[in-house]
Amino acid sequence: MDLIDVHSHIVPQRFPDNPSPATNSRWPCMHARNATEAAVMIGDKPFREIDSRSWEVSRRIDDMDRDRVSMQALSPMPELLSYWFAPSDGLEMARWMNHTIASMVSAAPKRFAGLGIVPLQDPALAAAELGRLQRDGFSGIEIGSNVNGVVLGDRRFDEFYAEAERLNLAIFVHALHPIGADRLQAFPDLVPFAAFPLDTALTAISLMRAGVPQRHPNLRIGFSHGGGAIVPLTHRLAQGWKVTNGFGGAMQEPPMYYAQRFFYDSLVYEPGYLRHLVGEFAPGQVFGGTDYPYAIMETQLRDFLTSAETVHRASLFNGAAKRFLALEPG
Amino acid sequence: MDLIDVHSHIVPQRFPDNPSPATNSRWPCMHARNATEAAVMIGDKPFREIDSRSWEVSRRIDDMDRDRVSMQALSPMPELLSYWFAPSDGLEMARWMNHTIASMVSAAPKRFAGLGIVPLQDPALAAAELGRLQRDGFSGIEIGSNVNGVVLGDRRFDEFYAEAERLNLAIFVHALHPIGADRLQAFPDLVPFAAFPLDTALTAISLMRAGVPQRHPNLRIGFSHGGGAIVPLTHRLAQGWKVTNGFGGAMQEPPMYYAQRFFYDSLVYEPGYLRHLVGEFAPGQVFGGTDYPYAIMETQLRDFLTSAETVHRASLFNGAAKRFLALEPG
Repeated sequence: MDLIDVHSHIVPQRFPDNPSPATNSRWPCMHARNATEAAVMIGDKPFREIDSRSWEVSRRIDDMDRDRVSMQALSPMPELLSYWFAPSDGLEMARWMNHTIASMVSAAPKRFAGLGIVPLQDPALAAAELGRLQRDGFSGIEIGSNVNGVVLGDRRFDEFYAEAERLNLAIFVHALHPIGADRLQAFPDLVPFAAFPLDTALTAISLMRAGVPQRHPNLRIGFSHGGGAIVPLTHRLAQGWKVTNGFGGAMQEPPMYYAQRFFYDSLVYEPGYLRHLVGEFAPGQVFGGTDYPYAIMETQLRDFLTSAETVHRASLFNGAAKRFLALEPG
Repeated sequence: MDLIDVHSHIVPQRFPDNPSPATNSRWPCMHARNATEAAVMIGDKPFREIDSRSWEVSRRIDDMDRDRVSMQALSPMPELLSYWFAPSDGLEMARWMNHTIASMVSAAPKRFAGLGIVPLQDPALAAAELGRLQRDGFSGIEIGSNVNGVVLGDRRFDEFYAEAERLNLAIFVHALHPIGADRLQAFPDLVPFAAFPLDTALTAISLMRAGVPQRHPNLRIGFSHGGGAIVPLTHRLAQGWKVTNGFGGAMQEPPMYYAQRFFYDSLVYEPGYLRHLVGEFAPGQVFGGTDYPYAIMETQLRDFLTSAETVHRASLFNGAAKRFLALEPG
């Protein structure tokens, strides 16, 4: 059975020069360790050690063949989203990233789909860039779970959502610079492990509460890491919806209505919870995701999805991904 | 079947005078609306409208009889935890609250158990106060999910945990002033609905990561709101534990080992998720909880627990509560 991995990341082999070195202290650059290994530097600090799986099509396809993965959706490593630069600099990085992704997709269009990035710190600029992404064959965009601390339910993003809906581009929300990180200075390793799912869920709830899926019923929004902590939050929000008359009318339908129209990746690491997510919480709305090629990746996606022992197996393997990415069926 | 509600709150009919009015801008006071209704004021702002269910034993017992609840554990409304005052002022408020609770329990000792409070902003003072609580017949203490922004896994709280373990006092962790609140200014109603579960889960994970349940194997720790978002976080932490060799040895056992020794209340509002929580995540470790007498309360605890259709029904109704509160069996 076809298996699609919607959550995989790329890094280009090199970055453009810092356009504003006086102000952009977090502009990335690449330090090659050897022919196949490199460090992404943020300023003068190593941010992550990576290897050629991040940029080399042939190596990715070898791994996909080994793991029997039919297709990967390619999105940038989230630290490259570049919301913290001036919009014009963010746009320069976005175009560089999108060019890299488009090149990889064009090298093997049956094996890759593209999720580009846009400078969401300037929602109008981000919306305007979506047309180019659509013309270049992207399936959608990856966005952060917050934009410099602003949740995605903020009204400033409405025009961006409207344009993504109009252009039929999927939005894949990835955890980024999460809430709670400031409380974890004694345990920095908890930031990706524990705080990522919190940020994703908070932003998902803010989208529901703000009425984004209500105003944009055809917009496809998918969340990384199984929506993070979205399951318990949605049920609690539902109680709030009941006792506040739909938050004073802001939400016409109960939270589960919207939660079951969102998409989620399968990156939850535990078969019983995956079964709950895809079977009870959001039937048919969960697609495969691995976090390839990073250390925390789900290395056995096919086995993991099978282990959930759910009637939604076909949807998990490829059905939900095809709907999310708007791929031709079959 | 006996039904125990471990998550119910009290507020005294009046508060002590502010001992340090020059600095304690958040000291509570009570404005009576009429004979049975009042507003808790924090400074000059109404914080919550309450009624005599918060302080009147006979009215609580009437409600318990109506709902066929055998016993309530009484804990203060979390805003009264008073961590933001000088330790001596916090101790004064804690003793006032604990005196109120002890009086209510002594009025109907078969219907109530006590969960007191301590000034955890001074862990040594808090630890020293535990002896008095034990002598006064308390089953345990309620603590916030953070103490002025510090997660509960912080090493400063070790002596407090050691003393609670030694005195066989349960710790009930309640969400308080949560992470993410600063991002929800457009939607303040999301703070209790969405941010509470995030704070609870983050602090639970910090406890595991810091080795608290490993160092204090007999300490009983229970979490409000079903542990908040603890389920997805624990599974992701487990992946981190695998790829980091137990966080460099800090955690001997995998996260699920500790998660299954914590307790959780049933306040998750959705039968399928409750079934997952008590059946798959933490078998037998979930006790009843309602948030009585507040608007968001689970009004039909008996029906809700029954609707989960789990083999852990007896444990949900009273077994887990009896173990958590160290009540005599039967």
